[in-house]
Amino acid sequence: MTNKPFRVLVLHGPNLNLLGQREKSVYGRMTLGEVNRALIDLAKREGAELDIRQSNSEGELVTWIQEARGRFDAIVINPAAYTHTSVAIREAVSAVQIPTVEVHLSNIYAREEFRHHSFIAPVAKGQIAGFGVESYLLGLRALAKLKSKN
Amino acid sequence: MTNKPFRVLVLHGPNLNLLGQREKSVYGRMTLGEVNRALIDLAKREGAELDIRQSNSEGELVTWIQEARGRFDAIVINPAAYTHTSVAIREAVSAVQIPTVEVHLSNIYAREEFRHHSFIAPVAKGQIAGFGVESYLLGLRALAKLKSKN
Amino acid sequence: MTNKPFRVLVLHGPNLNLLGQREKSVYGRMTLGEVNRALIDLAKREGAELDIRQSNSEGELVTWIQEARGRFDAIVINPAAYTHTSVAIREAVSAVQIPTVEVHLSNIYAREEFRHHSFIAPVAKGQIAGFGVESYLLGLRALAKLKSKN
Amino acid sequence: MTNKPFRVLVLHGPNLNLLGQREKSVYGRMTLGEVNRALIDLAKREGAELDIRQSNSEGELVTWIQEARGRFDAIVINPAAYTHTSVAIREAVSAVQIPTVEVHLSNIYAREEFRHHSFIAPVAKGQIAGFGVESYLLGLRALAKLKSKN
Amino acid sequence: MTNKPFRVLVLHGPNLNLLGQREKSVYGRMTLGEVNRALIDLAKREGAELDIRQSNSEGELVTWIQEARGRFDAIVINPAAYTHTSVAIREAVSAVQIPTVEVHLSNIYAREEFRHHSFIAPVAKGQIAGFGVESYLLGLRALAKLKSKN
Amino acid sequence: MTNKPFRVLVLHGPNLNLLGQREKSVYGRMTLGEVNRALIDLAKREGAELDIRQSNSEGELVTWIQEARGRFDAIVINPAAYTHTSVAIREAVSAVQIPTVEVHLSNIYAREEFRHHSFIAPVAKGQIAGFGVESYLLGLRALAKLKSKN
Amino acid sequence: MTNKPFRVLVLHGPNLNLLGQREKSVYGRMTLGEVNRALIDLAKREGAELDIRQSNSEGELVTWIQEARGRFDAIVINPAAYTHTSVAIREAVSAVQIPTVEVHLSNIYAREEFRHHSFIAPVAKGQIAGFGVESYLLGLRALAKLKSKN
Amino acid sequence: MTNKPFRVLVLHGPNLNLLGQREKSVYGRMTLGEVNRALIDLAKREGAELDIRQSNSEGELVTWIQEARGRFDAIVINPAAYTHTSVAIREAVSAVQIPTVEVHLSNIYAREEFRHHSFIAPVAKGQIAGFGVESYLLGLRALAKLKSKN
Amino acid sequence: MTNKPFRVLVLHGPNLNLLGQREKSVYGRMTLGEVNRALIDLAKREGAELDIRQSNSEGELVTWIQEARGRFDAIVINPAAYTHTSVAIREAVSAVQIPTVEVHLSNIYAREEFRHHSFIAPVAKGQIAGFGVESYLLGLRALAKLKSKN
Amino acid sequence: MTNKPFRVLVLHGPNLNLLGQREKSVYGRMTLGEVNRALIDLAKREGAELDIRQSNSEGELVTWIQEARGRFDAIVINPAAYTHTSVAIREAVSAVQIPTVEVHLSNIYAREEFRHHSFIAPVAKGQIAGFGVESYLLGLRALAKLKSKN
Amino acid sequence: MTNKPFRVLVLHGPNLNLLGQREKSVYGRMTLGEVNRALIDLAKREGAELDIRQSNSEGELVTWIQEARGRFDAIVINPAAYTHTSVAIREAVSAVQIPTVEVHLSNIYAREEFRHHSFIAPVAKGQIAGFGVESYLLGLRALAKLKSKN
Amino acid sequence: MTNKPFRVLVLHGPNLNLLGQREKSVYGRMTLGEVNRALIDLAKREGAELDIRQSNSEGELVTWIQEARGRFDAIVINPAAYTHTSVAIREAVSAVQIPTVEVHLSNIYAREEFRHHSFIAPVAKGQIAGFGVESYLLGLRALAKLKSKN
Repeated sequence: MTNKPFRVLVLHGPNLNLLGQREKSVYGRMTLGEVNRALIDLAKREGAELDIRQSNSEGELVTWIQEARGRFDAIVINPAAYTHTSVAIREAVSAVQIPTVEVHLSNIYAREEFRHHSFIAPVAKGQIAGFGVESYLLGLRALAKLKSKN
Repeated sequence: MTNKPFRVLVLHGPNLNLLGQREKSVYGRMTLGEVNRALIDLAKREGAELDIRQSNSEGELVTWIQEARGRFDAIVINPAAYTHTSVAIREAVSAVQIPTVEVHLSNIYAREEFRHHSFIAPVAKGQIAGFGVESYLLGLRALAKLKSKN
Repeated sequence: MTNKPFRVLVLHGPNLNLLGQREKSVYGRMTLGEVNRALIDLAKREGAELDIRQSNSEGELVTWIQEARGRFDAIVINPAAYTHTSVAIREAVSAVQIPTVEVHLSNIYAREEFRHHSFIAPVAKGQIAGFGVESYLLGLRALAKLKSKN
Repeated sequence: MTNKPFRVLVLHGPNLNLLGQREKSVYGRMTLGEVNRALIDLAKREGAELDIRQSNSEGELVTWIQEARGRFDAIVINPAAYTHTSVAIREAVSAVQIPTVEVHLSNIYAREEFRHHSFIAPVAKGQIAGFGVESYLLGLRALAKLKSKN
Repeated sequence: MTNKPFRVLVLHGPNLNLLGQREKSVYGRMTLGEVNRALIDLAKREGAELDIRQSNSEGELVTWIQEARGRFDAIVINPAAYTHTSVAIREAVSAVQIPTVEVHLSNIYAREEFRHHSFIAPVAKGQIAGFGVESYLLGLRALAKLKSKN
Repeated sequence: MTNKPFRVLVLHGPNLNLLGQREKSVYGRMTLGEVNRALIDLAKREGAELDIRQSNSEGELVTWIQEARGRFDAIVINPAAYTHTSVAIREAVSAVQIPTVEVHLSNIYAREEFRHHSFIAPVAKGQIAGFGVESYLLGLRALAKLKSKN
Repeated sequence: MTNKPFRVLVLHGPNLNLLGQREKSVYGRMTLGEVNRALIDLAKREGAELDIRQSNSEGELVTWIQEARGRFDAIVINPAAYTHTSVAIREAVSAVQIPTVEVHLSNIYAREEFRHHSFIAPVAKGQIAGFGVESYLLGLRALAKLKSKN
Repeated sequence: MTNKPFRVLVLHGPNLNLLGQREKSVYGRMTLGEVNRALIDLAKREGAELDIRQSNSEGELVTWIQEARGRFDAIVINPAAYTHTSVAIREAVSAVQIPTVEVHLSNIYAREEFRHHSFIAPVAKGQIAGFGVESYLLGLRALAKLKSKN
Repeated sequence: MTNKPFRVLVLHGPNLNLLGQREKSVYGRMTLGEVNRALIDLAKREGAELDIRQSNSEGELVTWIQEARGRFDAIVINPAAYTHTSVAIREAVSAVQIPTVEVHLSNIYAREEFRHHSFIAPVAKGQIAGFGVESYLLGLRALAKLKSKN
Repeated sequence: MTNKPFRVLVLHGPNLNLLGQREKSVYGRMTLGEVNRALIDLAKREGAELDIRQSNSEGELVTWIQEARGRFDAIVINPAAYTHTSVAIREAVSAVQIPTVEVHLSNIYAREEFRHHSFIAPVAKGQIAGFGVESYLLGLRALAKLKSKN
Repeated sequence: MTNKPFRVLVLHGPNLNLLGQREKSVYGRMTLGEVNRALIDLAKREGAELDIRQSNSEGELVTWIQEARGRFDAIVINPAAYTHTSVAIREAVSAVQIPTVEVHLSNIYAREEFRHHSFIAPVAKGQIAGFGVESYLLGLRALAKLKSKN
Repeated sequence: MTNKPFRVLVLHGPNLNLLGQREKSVYGRMTLGEVNRALIDLAKREGAELDIRQSNSEGELVTWIQEARGRFDAIVINPAAYTHTSVAIREAVSAVQIPTVEVHLSNIYAREEFRHHSFIAPVAKGQIAGFGVESYLLGLRALAKLKSKN
């Protein structure tokens, strides 16, 4: 283990900018800003540096993942709608070979059939779903733990 | 009912900018400009204000739908190719909770199997397909009528 | 275009006679009589003559469609339950070659999986779903417009 | 509970008029007349009034179910072949909101694959299959019991 | 073999009354009257008596098949659209145990996928498809031959 | 018919011990004890002797069914969750050749897709679903009737 | 029509050389020799010349069909097992553009699921199944009739 | 929130007793004892009391879940092989209404197709997969966090 | 190769204790005792020591397989009904890494569709089906041979 | 039992002539010659006469199976690639009614999905897979045993 | 043929900018720059002018294809991940009616199931897969050849 | 690299001998002789020696591929109809381990569904489809290039 900070890229997929403003019974009442603050708080405690971004564009998410090489030690991604439709994000994750955790606010397995399949999960380190903002925090912890083992 | 104008966002999905220039037997001979003029004509008669946009980008369409909150009373969308592949647009429509009508120039049910499924229809108010430019005009009327009832 | 009136056959499929009396949250509160009056009102404004019928019998609907040849310029049909099961109605529509619009009160794409498939849509001019009685009115307009173009 | 008789509509679907004359190894040796007499006997003991009808026509069955509103307290239906193909009967049952029991003479789950799916069962109160004429009698009892609870 | 005439019931399913008037490239130019005359001609040569009927109603076809017991020695049926959707006709054919031949004017295997499945074929003696009016005549011959063997 | 009592084994599958304590909107408010008392009451009236057992273990249910040979004249089984997953129970029922009725408290056809398939039904005498405790009582009656016929 | 004889190639697919010796309940008791004699008898009456061959080899059947060009006016083929597996025979039939009738001794639609699909039928003129040797004879008649019309 | 300890039932499904001894490349090198010690360590820090059990028996796991009512505030379960086949465990979890987290050592979405479906996930609070022993620890944290919110 | 005896665990799955008493046309007339005696006879000739067990419980079979590590050199298992439903037994076999042969009395490929899939076969050394008791004996021979090669 | 030798036809399907030269990790290192010698050795011990052939041609295999009637008492066949595609070989085996064992060198259930289905197994006596050359020897033993029982 | 240069648009889809840096065993060791240089070299020899672009954005690729009309004579596209998910790119290719070749570095048919389906191939001139950089060069040659023929 | 000529086996599958004589709109106007001459011309320029063969027999193609070992450095194969049905050719290609290119004259992805699946492509080096005779020439170039790299 070195003293270098643990750099984590946090990616929010499409429509997550509306968090706390839409379908609260499904996604909860926290806004994206509040989620991010909770992440930053935890990051401080874990000695991690976060770069947090949101995009509605599949291509932009692909590019951000590509650019993470050499700059970040891990990725927390909530691919949202792109979970179920994007081979491009899957391949970006697979290509950069940075430990990546897929997180979901809601329990996608308790929802429509098409949400049960993830193109990204098979190339991620793991998947955490159903705990609201806590899914992100658990994802961050999982990555921190992973790092501490190497 | 108030005197406020009825503000409608009209969204044309990918490749619709080529209208009247491609596969005319399927999509008809009108150009997108002509479609838009017909829409504006009808809007005037219906006392509606239109904002009409076209994009080839799924993410841009998502963003425009998100931004419609508070600015538009209704959305007419022809998601074109994204009808069949975009969960992101579905979720944007679902999130903003603005009455939305999905329209198609061609009769998608008389074409390839993969065109029979729409990710957007289940969260739209309704769907109109097969009437060429008239599909848009009927969609606009449907929304105007809907509003007049509230 | 001639001065001859625009003759339209309006067909209501099975169980639509119960309209306004059953599952109002799905189908709305208008009775079939009220739907028909709205249609007749619009027809007057559009210079159309309507013949409106309802049947619970697949065979009777087939026969009415067959008999429309030479008597009607267009058909508005809500095949209701037969949408999803009747090849016979599909073939009648296909055989008579009268412009036909398929309409649905509810958004069939927001309901059970088996309602997402229509045997009739591929041989209809187009399909309109989800606008309650307005679906019929829009269908009538679509046909009137269609006629005015020929 | 009141003193009013318990009025039950018993509907036999297509080909049941041939009972006892066809495929006896599958459907048993009782004729439809004998089935009806057994039903009437039980009805007397249960204080129920029966109206028993058979039809080969999907539309007629739909109409009879519709007309049951206000006239019958319950329906026993053996939809026979229409079990597997009729959305129209499903919707009639669903619309009239009269407690309905679906019965089958044979064990449909021990026969061809296409007999395992019922369009009517999901909107019925329950389903009884495999006991020959006894399926009808059990259905009648189930409805009588149901009534006695309300 | 006796001197009794060979009595054959010929059943034309839905929309066949439009023969020669619709989709001639698929179904040919002969009208139903002409088909029937050709059948009657052949019947005379084969010493058969024909009763020829057409119906758009599934239930009526079921009833006619049921009534054939004791009155007819064989059935030639073109179930048309009901080929693909009617379990009720299948069961009627199966119940009456009269040798039945299923015929089709067009080659149903060269058309849409849903036309490749027949509910009736598994309980018929055999199936003949693709020869226009000749399909009926071959069906009649097949039945005559069958009878001559018993 | 002899004077020997009619011995019936009643088997409750997994989680039925929680009856009346869980998901009451689906399974009703009666406890398993109350269901059993109702069964015993009916058994007395029908001249039947019951042995009633509940198990969460697939293997134990298999063993109980096996041991029923020579000891019981009939089986009423609510396989609950094992309905949809147990080939072992199916084979036990099939092996012992004791008339068996499959019962369900809820209408399994009105619930999730995976509940529509039963491994046991094809080898049972029949299936009764949707009547709450009455499903068991009807099952018992069906078996008593069956016996009285032999 | 000319005086030239009507030349027909009759092809028997794999295992048909065992006819009358195997599974007689399915395929009947006639040997292939007897089938051929019946064909030759009919050919004489119809003024046709037959060349009859049998092969167990897919490739040989393909070659024979290819060589038929210019030598035969029509083909009667019972592709037997290759019906369900041979794209090569389908393409040969499709390539040579000689009117071809597919025949089957047994009713393939009353047998295993995999026998319900034919690769050849979509490119044949028509299909006849279920009449034993009569299937061949009807096929020959169909072709003779077809020729007499040109 | 009270001072009562947070009582958590930890359930290890079939074959997890072999942990660290089998397929280490998939499941890692820690033994079940080591996993349990790590859980107990974390529990102490979180102020939780654990009861940890392992069973190869579906029925026993069902019973343990049932018995958790009133004794435990939360459940962490790794259903292992039963994830994909047990409706009984699903119903136990659903019945007891105790917050339950499903955890998996390996990333089940990167393995065989049949491992991608979980019967339990839809009724669990959430699912965590792919982090080895850390999956359990994250599950425990998620539950502790959940509790602290109530 | 050493002089140590070849120790083989023979596992009979659910309902095999009824052998010779049930469905003899499918499973033959030998009882399980007779099967076991034949196995012991062969074992003597092959210099093998057998431990033979039968269980109706999936969990017990899992445990026995686990316990085989270090005690047995090979396993002969007839998983019976669990062949088609048990991932738990698959994983036990996969975990213990003892050469295992899956045997079946009947030809499972000549029976119902659901019997054609085995969860265990992909992790077994091989599969033998269709030879009655001989399937077990061949399995034992296969394992003995396998051992003699190492 | 007679003194007549037990005559067995051994058929090797396509590409088995390359044995020991291709994909040795899948099919082992023995050549086809060595397999045959092992078979002949065992045959001598079992008092059997073998005729061993290999062909890459589906038609030739069909013909050899047909010709086996009256000449052989049993068949051991490794249909190799034709296992998954040949209805013709299935029908030949089914037609000749000679006890036939299907063998495979590799465990086909541990390989690609398309290898899990055999057209031949349902009409064979049984199937043995996964034991290399031993699969053939076990097949021969199984047939010898079978014979000794008759 | 004219003297005008042959103008070809070369489009690299998402993640191809990482070429040579990711999963080299699948995609090879050449960087995108090297691929482009090889293309330019060949273009010179073929008298072609290339415009080479890469994008991670589906929408941008759609726009570039649209803009190609009138500017380019042909398109070589490696849609990468969008091959399997983009109807929008399919429609752009279909709309512009410029001869287009789809190329892939890897053999997509030797990889995961979801890579076997291309939305673009059906509207392209042809597809070339599996030859690394050579796939592009062959695609360019194919287009040059195509042009030389017109 | 040596001076030895590059020996390539070119295999034309079933019905390709009819090239230029059948379905010219699909397969083009060149005859097989002309295709072969074009191949020989290119081979000369590339310093390759060709052996060109055509067969309608699956088995013969298998044998030719087998015999290619040691005699040819590469194979160009157009498996035609066998592309979609032959596991035997797949295994031959897989076994001989000679670099093989699969070519198709037409764009198989723009044709019937069953043509979209190739059994051979997964074991070939790559696939080229849609360029008429040029598909073969590109295949030959691809192989020559491949060789020049080794």
